Amino acid sequence: MRKRNSKKGGSLRVIPIGGLNEIGKNMTLLEYNDDILIIDCGMSFPEDEMYGIDIVIPDFSYIIKNKEKIKGMVLTHGHEDHIGAIPYLLNTTRVPIYGTRLTLGLVENKLKEHGIKADLNTIASGDKVQLGCFNVEAIRSTHSVADSICLSIDTPVGRVFHTGDFKIDYTPVDGAPIDFAKLAELGSKGVLLMMCDSTNATKPGYSASEQTVGVAIENIFRGSEARILIATFSSNVHRVQKIIDTAVLFNRKVAVSGRSMVNVVTIAMELGYLKVPPNVLVDINKTKNIPDKELVIITTGSQGEPMSALTRMASNDHKAVTIKKGDMVILSSSPVPGNEKTVSNVVNKLFEKGADVIYSDIADIHVSGHACEEELKLMHSLIKPKFFVPVHGEYRHLKKHSNIAEKLGYDPSHIFILENGNVLSLTSNSAEILKEEVPSQAIYVDGLGVGDVGNIVLRDRKLLSESGLIIVVAAIDKASGTVCSGPDLISRGFVYVRENENLIDQARAIAAKTLDKCCEENIKDWNALKTAVRDDLRGFIYKQTKRSPVILPIFLEV
Amino acid sequence: MRKRNSKKGGSLRVIPIGGLNEIGKNMTLLEYNDDILIIDCGMSFPEDEMYGIDIVIPDFSYIIKNKEKIKGMVLTHGHEDHIGAIPYLLNTTRVPIYGTRLTLGLVENKLKEHGIKADLNTIASGDKVQLGCFNVEAIRSTHSVADSICLSIDTPVGRVFHTGDFKIDYTPVDGAPIDFAKLAELGSKGVLLMMCDSTNATKPGYSASEQTVGVAIENIFRGSEARILIATFSSNVHRVQKIIDTAVLFNRKVAVSGRSMVNVVTIAMELGYLKVPPNVLVDINKTKNIPDKELVIITTGSQGEPMSALTRMASNDHKAVTIKKGDMVILSSSPVPGNEKTVSNVVNKLFEKGADVIYSDIADIHVSGHACEEELKLMHSLIKPKFFVPVHGEYRHLKKHSNIAEKLGYDPSHIFILENGNVLSLTSNSAEILKEEVPSQAIYVDGLGVGDVGNIVLRDRKLLSESGLIIVVAAIDKASGTVCSGPDLISRGFVYVRENENLIDQARAIAAKTLDKCCEENIKDWNALKTAVRDDLRGFIYKQTKRSPVILPIFLEV
Repeated sequence: MRKRNSKKGGSLRVIPIGGLNEIGKNMTLLEYNDDILIIDCGMSFPEDEMYGIDIVIPDFSYIIKNKEKIKGMVLTHGHEDHIGAIPYLLNTTRVPIYGTRLTLGLVENKLKEHGIKADLNTIASGDKVQLGCFNVEAIRSTHSVADSICLSIDTPVGRVFHTGDFKIDYTPVDGAPIDFAKLAELGSKGVLLMMCDSTNATKPGYSASEQTVGVAIENIFRGSEARILIATFSSNVHRVQKIIDTAVLFNRKVAVSGRSMVNVVTIAMELGYLKVPPNVLVDINKTKNIPDKELVIITTGSQGEPMSALTRMASNDHKAVTIKKGDMVILSSSPVPGNEKTVSNVVNKLFEKGADVIYSDIADIHVSGHACEEELKLMHSLIKPKFFVPVHGEYRHLKKHSNIAEKLGYDPSHIFILENGNVLSLTSNSAEILKEEVPSQAIYVDGLGVGDVGNIVLRDRKLLSESGLIIVVAAIDKASGTVCSGPDLISRGFVYVRENENLIDQARAIAAKTLDKCCEENIKDWNALKTAVRDDLRGFIYKQTKRSPVILPIFLEV
Repeated sequence: MRKRNSKKGGSLRVIPIGGLNEIGKNMTLLEYNDDILIIDCGMSFPEDEMYGIDIVIPDFSYIIKNKEKIKGMVLTHGHEDHIGAIPYLLNTTRVPIYGTRLTLGLVENKLKEHGIKADLNTIASGDKVQLGCFNVEAIRSTHSVADSICLSIDTPVGRVFHTGDFKIDYTPVDGAPIDFAKLAELGSKGVLLMMCDSTNATKPGYSASEQTVGVAIENIFRGSEARILIATFSSNVHRVQKIIDTAVLFNRKVAVSGRSMVNVVTIAMELGYLKVPPNVLVDINKTKNIPDKELVIITTGSQGEPMSALTRMASNDHKAVTIKKGDMVILSSSPVPGNEKTVSNVVNKLFEKGADVIYSDIADIHVSGHACEEELKLMHSLIKPKFFVPVHGEYRHLKKHSNIAEKLGYDPSHIFILENGNVLSLTSNSAEILKEEVPSQAIYVDGLGVGDVGNIVLRDRKLLSESGLIIVVAAIDKASGTVCSGPDLISRGFVYVRENENLIDQARAIAAKTLDKCCEENIKDWNALKTAVRDDLRGFIYKQTKRSPVILPIFLEV
């Protein structure tokens, strides 16, 4: 539905900068006249073909351009795909940040690592905060990190509801389910627009309660005399709590391994989100003398991350822990798509060392933190918005979520599958996607560089990775126009030079011949010279090897 | 169990060259005195970090060294992980090959592409063939390619049974289930050693029959007026047959797309494995005028392979087929581990073009071709071997299969989890792993090169892919020992040079300073010179960018 909006300046602009047609780097702007509100500021992990890229962040250029309009940022929860890009934004723009205690604890820890100070403002569920023309209310939610909230935002054109990441957990570990009464009340009063998590929209049924994982963990502990190692997401404070509770129940000490796990456990204990009785925690470096059946090690690495504690243990490369026959290792997680192989590698190595390994193939030791189809239906039925934008997901998730909404009776013209950079313009009774596009490309972070690696650099890295490179170097005498040194051939990542001397010698001869010919013909155009050498060499190499290494002629005039 | 074998030369040597601790490149040798029998000769696909590698094949050096002993090769079925390396072996060694008709049809097609002729000998299930001291019997089996067999091999020390890849399908599409009577008879007579497929050992229960996929496909056809595109593995002739039968039932024409699909359909029709009524097949280039509801397109690309027909259709890059709103696309497959992301990308693109997409997340339109736990138990209970070697799988699969066997009552010392290159020595009543190791490393094929890319070349490709490279080039006057041209800096895959001129200029200045200093100090050792420049530059670049590009100093003496 594309309607013309008659009242200039009287419309709300909803602008997703990240999180659509992708999993990760969630970030949405609400703009009304001179006020902009930012919802979340996440990062994502690089795809396979993004060689050398550490992380990917949203494009902040629209924010920087409009920095005087920014009234604040509200965070729905403390996962990396919602808070991970904050340090990079703060390096360009000062923004007051609002979030719950645990969320801000996680942000603060991140900012400390980057040496950045920020204006952090704690809100609790039920609180309201006025940011410019936006009145934001935090509503208790349930997700795989504690202290998650949904946002109800009163704007001059009507109420916007953003679910954040959520699931419907009737029996969460902390006993506080999502605030159904509040959601129903909002629905009765009227919601103009809902933006709703789509991550699990393609999964039918319901996600299981976090409590079921607790039961599975308890069953494993009950039957075991082994040393138990459990890897899980450090941010899942509820699960860590359940593991600690179960350890206490079975008279086991708990040691914590992995930088992010140590960080989160420390923060969560300080803030009171994690309750650990005295004398239960022990230093990971002092576990050697504790009998196996009296110890649990909670560790990072449930995704097989190369530098994580569990991966190092599996590779006999961990200072404090050596995996031994009889150890029980639990991977309390599912592989994130793309990580299946790294997880298998770690599982294989653990089995080879004699450990028993329990992972997602084998038992229900993980549940998702995102709402499945039936939970989404409940959320829609409570909120009953006029307009709907599915968020957080690849196109297939957004499309499926849109289909679910249609089945619930939405007018199809009231559902908008947006792309990053789209501008959805809303009045109290209309919505349209504007022709305008806001910059929203993926910004690559490589080392200290933000955005200095782009597609051309990545294409070069890909070419180099596929067949390596050959450098042809020669010095050419300016006066006589003759080759006075070289050509020499230097290769990297191409073939074993020692075992292919013949090939390299022939290639050098071809380069020499082309160079001599050019010199004889008195070709002074260096680009022409380089092109001739590159073309002749490329043809020869491809014919001999069916490979296309990068060929780099370098000629020095002396 | 490691027993000494007293009778020299009187033992059978079982040598897996590939397929253990990995999925793929299956190959096993049986050796007795002067006779060697080869079972299968497969390839595998490269892992992520094997940059630029096309395929991986087994190490043939033991076979080449013992080529006069080779009596023949028997193939269990026609999948690439069992036949894909044959052309590379035949380039080094002549070997007579035995297999069923469809298997050899697929081999012949492959050899034609490589321009190789071979000694191919057709056997049918029930046939026996004498190869040296080995008497090999082919036994009808069921798997996701037609004409699969198990092998019962009589050797001088006793009977060896190799399952090949198999599942227990009581209702296969061709009506011929696995030959249970024969398996039971072998079990009664006595089997010394069983080698058994472990691919699905970690999956509890049973694999579903191929017929269930037929039912799902029929249900989709029944309800649809759309043009239907189905992607599946070209080798799954039974599934292709079912799709064609269903098309005929619903009065649809069938077009075939993708090189391997066209090849396999042609071969299978010629050999009578695929039965297509006249006037059903139409040329993929002549489908434009066929009404949507009267057409089915069978295509490759169910794994999202970049160059496959379906991927090209999804990218609007296919000559004959353009995806349009309302098309129904079925991916009749599960993503092979590691392919999840490429499959999702194709699914997203198809949805974006307006197609309905049915894939493994949504419906039961695929079944596995490998036996799950309960099927494995049936095979063990029928064959009842004295010794057992789990084959085809990563360590976790082999270990789980070994656990299953133990639960069935095996003496644990009669189960051998082998590694590629191990030699298991068998007599009629003993088995031991010898200390000897046979070469069994993964051989990388890159273009025309077989084995000329190894770990050092791959490490260079990885380094180049991560941060690119910087070349420092200078010409140095031999007589005066001074720099007469350069140093120049050339980079690839590092940063956008135009936007980072300052960085590059500073780096050049550092290289120049180091070079001048070395020249002043009269350092004549070129390696020392290169090292000095590389170290200074590396330190500067890392400090400025936290990146470590490959730095390549090249100095020409003129």
